[in-house]
Amino acid sequence: MEVKSNNITVERTKRSKIDQVDFDNLSFGSVFADHMLVCDYKNGEWGAPSVVPYQPIELEPSAKIFHYGQSIFEGMKAYKDDQGGVWLFRPEENQKRLNISAKRLAMPELPKEIFMEGLATLLQVDQEWIPQTKGSSLYIRPFMFASGNGFHASPADAYKFIIACAPSGPYFSGKVKVLIEERYSRAANGGVGFAKAGGNYAAQFYPTQLAVQKGYNQVIWTDDNTHEYIEEAGAMNIFVRINDTLITAPTNDRILDGITRKSILDIAADEGIETEVRKITVAEVINAAKDGSLKEMFGAGTAAVVSPISAFGYKEVDYNLPELDQSYAALLKKRITDIQYNRGDDKFGWRYRVL
Amino acid sequence: MEVKSNNITVERTKRSKIDQVDFDNLSFGSVFADHMLVCDYKNGEWGAPSVVPYQPIELEPSAKIFHYGQSIFEGMKAYKDDQGGVWLFRPEENQKRLNISAKRLAMPELPKEIFMEGLATLLQVDQEWIPQTKGSSLYIRPFMFASGNGFHASPADAYKFIIACAPSGPYFSGKVKVLIEERYSRAANGGVGFAKAGGNYAAQFYPTQLAVQKGYNQVIWTDDNTHEYIEEAGAMNIFVRINDTLITAPTNDRILDGITRKSILDIAADEGIETEVRKITVAEVINAAKDGSLKEMFGAGTAAVVSPISAFGYKEVDYNLPELDQSYAALLKKRITDIQYNRGDDKFGWRYRVL
Ligand SMILES: Cc1ncc(COP(=O)(O)O)c(C=O)c1O
Ligand SMILES: Cc1ncc(COP(=O)(O)O)c(C=O)c1O
Repeated sequence: MEVKSNNITVERTKRSKIDQVDFDNLSFGSVFADHMLVCDYKNGEWGAPSVVPYQPIELEPSAKIFHYGQSIFEGMKAYKDDQGGVWLFRPEENQKRLNISAKRLAMPELPKEIFMEGLATLLQVDQEWIPQTKGSSLYIRPFMFASGNGFHASPADAYKFIIACAPSGPYFSGKVKVLIEERYSRAANGGVGFAKAGGNYAAQFYPTQLAVQKGYNQVIWTDDNTHEYIEEAGAMNIFVRINDTLITAPTNDRILDGITRKSILDIAADEGIETEVRKITVAEVINAAKDGSLKEMFGAGTAAVVSPISAFGYKEVDYNLPELDQSYAALLKKRITDIQYNRGDDKFGWRYRVL
Repeated sequence: MEVKSNNITVERTKRSKIDQVDFDNLSFGSVFADHMLVCDYKNGEWGAPSVVPYQPIELEPSAKIFHYGQSIFEGMKAYKDDQGGVWLFRPEENQKRLNISAKRLAMPELPKEIFMEGLATLLQVDQEWIPQTKGSSLYIRPFMFASGNGFHASPADAYKFIIACAPSGPYFSGKVKVLIEERYSRAANGGVGFAKAGGNYAAQFYPTQLAVQKGYNQVIWTDDNTHEYIEEAGAMNIFVRINDTLITAPTNDRILDGITRKSILDIAADEGIETEVRKITVAEVINAAKDGSLKEMFGAGTAAVVSPISAFGYKEVDYNLPELDQSYAALLKKRITDIQYNRGDDKFGWRYRVL
């Protein structure tokens, strides 16, 4: 057992699994690095974090995670540059958002040091797991859940915070075709849509399965009241380009305040692209598709990076998007990944060196 | 290891904890019976159920329950009568509802035999755990969650179904004061409010904590769009008596179709009480409170049985309800518990003998 300068203990695995991994053919989030960071909350306080071998978790059957859905998470990536340097992208934003989610789910907030130093220590221990292959990265999953026991429907008295990592390739393989949802919804006004709460994702699976059966990859959610406004997709915020203006919906308590989304808005403005943050109606998008002013749609998120949408369906009609030579999506994706992989200028100060 | 006639294996505990339990002073859902039923789903099918000692569950850190909230549950009770007979109340309704929840959460439906026979076997093994003390019962918690692994936001490929039990006293101690919610909500149109999904409960905790800080026990949820209509409470459906009419909101995709609720409607009709299932506005309830026509409000649910509401708050004003000599709540509670504990006639055929 080592003790790091920041008081985080490290217990290294005796059998690394790294030799079993084909780093040239990584899927998304299905092989896991050798170690994880664990930190327990009980008796009203967080204990000392430690890095331990990635291993099963033991919980009582009455642990509240199984019954009352108190679980939140974050999604980040570690990027390795050509010189072997390791970078994060705006990690403090994830740390802040984790605590925003925690508050809404009546879970304890996690001190910033535990998050930041825990993550840095874990990445140091598992640095060999960060892929250098193009388009790959180490997907990082910080999560917190209710480990305290009891069948009473009230917040738990104990929680576990864990960071686990998975070397990953692209989230989507190939083109993305989406369905604009008319019936189901992911979030309520006054609900938890703005939080990265586990329950938000389970709620999306069934409608998404229905869309997949019809040949789409993702659902685009609309507001639950009228289904007239475009909100976001399962794990991405949505951008629409009409003529030369790039539009995305404002965040609210139903929509996740995506870090990629706000970075894209800044980069686009920096590129001189006209951006609008305003409500987008489905009708407007359909009309623009019909009159040819709809040039592009794309999703933006940590996992999906910038994912161009090739077509969308609405009320049994499919609308194809043109293939552009000089798309905003391609430009913005290049700029953001150049920052992430330390290939370009970091004029916004978003890059964060880990190693 | 015994094998029961229905092919359910039983492994009995070597150390019963029953001697440590004070059956005269039971709280709700905090001590757990010696055994549990476990059944695993993988490779597209359910395995054989077994009764095993109540024991910790081991899961990978990437198990989807921790990340994507795929969890559903039911709440039932086993009642012991004066002769030691053991009864359930409309258990097939819980079995059906579990599968309604499963479908919406993209989880596999559980065959009826596993539910019914598994439960019967478990209750036989743990029959000493069913309290005979007045007002107590064995609270039964069937639940299912995603045990399959992976960080991809999609349904798991493996699930666990468990039934665990907790000998329990009343859910509420004393009078119940509720707050009618104006800002937060528990469910979206087109969402999962009608399912007993874990995430619905976590979403309620923070607003409920705010209400508790103001001196209330529970929140009464209103529709997420206008907050003008009364929907239900955290773990109960809500009834309002205006003059001599008993009113409850219709169920929809935001509201749980409570078994107690529908039983109460039938019993009330049988008692010659006029009932209405229709939308209830907050304004109507406030006006009725002001002009004296609001006679009663109560919650109805398996855990809370029939829980009279003594006062409600709305926009910083508290409205007290009168104390009636002959309340509907008392009458209906007596009739339903007489059926449940085998003290009275079962004209609807709701009682289900287990032992
Ligand atoms: C619902 C939802 N919307 C949007 C996003 C994109 O957010 P970010 O760019 O911070 O990854 C995510 C993924 O994190 C998400 O889960
Ligand atoms: C949200 C909610 N509403 C209502 C109820 C009451 O339903 P039932 O009478 O079937 O227990 C419950 C409890 O089960 C519940 O969780």
